[in-house]
Amino acid sequence: MDLVQALQKTIDENIPLSGALGARVASYDGQLLTIDLPLPPNVNHKNTAFGGSLYCAAVLSAWGLLYIKLLEVCEDGVIVIFDGQIHYHKPVTREFVSVCEISDQLAWDKFVKIYRRMGKARLKINSDVFCEGGLCASFNGEFVVQKE
Amino acid sequence: MDLVQALQKTIDENIPLSGALGARVASYDGQLLTIDLPLPPNVNHKNTAFGGSLYCAAVLSAWGLLYIKLLEVCEDGVIVIFDGQIHYHKPVTREFVSVCEISDQLAWDKFVKIYRRMGKARLKINSDVFCEGGLCASFNGEFVVQKE
Repeated sequence: MDLVQALQKTIDENIPLSGALGARVASYDGQLLTIDLPLPPNVNHKNTAFGGSLYCAAVLSAWGLLYIKLLEVCEDGVIVIFDGQIHYHKPVTREFVSVCEISDQLAWDKFVKIYRRMGKARLKINSDVFCEGGLCASFNGEFVVQKE
Repeated sequence: MDLVQALQKTIDENIPLSGALGARVASYDGQLLTIDLPLPPNVNHKNTAFGGSLYCAAVLSAWGLLYIKLLEVCEDGVIVIFDGQIHYHKPVTREFVSVCEISDQLAWDKFVKIYRRMGKARLKINSDVFCEGGLCASFNGEFVVQKE
């Protein structure tokens, strides 16, 4: 099973809301994780995507990237969100994607070092939501990872 | 139909994800709006509530309170979230509630005045998520309301 399939299985088995959101792990190219979502289950009163759905999509891609990145360095642990903020730039009018990558390699290396030494570490991650190629929402989250 | 029923109907008809979340408008006492949510559809990998579900619950109570407060002053309009941030204090281990009230009456009065004059206004709202009486998450959102 590849990393994309492993993440989809983990999300499906552990976070039932992801099914209601229609979240599908689309790709991971070694850096960028992409999650696709359809509009219909996520619409709001304006027939655009509900702000809560965009936040969930953004969290799933950030959480998912951390999950994959930990597997890559042969680590695992419980990943929990501690803080999240999102800014909505423009409405999502059809299917959308949430994309996430580790943009700060130094911060990631430091995170892994502290995690291996202390069994617990924090990391800030950004993810973005796009629709038809346009940036619709920007998310910043702080996650805590702890060894079980 | 009372305000609680009107809000439940509006949410059910316009935001299908609220059904997946199991969100139920529990009460509105003239100040405080309370939305109840069950744990099972909102669990995560730790068998506590998914951070995205808590955010959705917080947004729904803030959006819902704005909807009710506008009806009370005989106004309506399209309510859209512009910015949201949430801090997670502790895990939600069973059914939970999201509560919201207008804590700054002066800001509300100013909002209504600007809205009536300009047909568009912004308001910052806080809501909190509780489980078994304990504060589990605090949300701050900025909403824009615009006349249709």
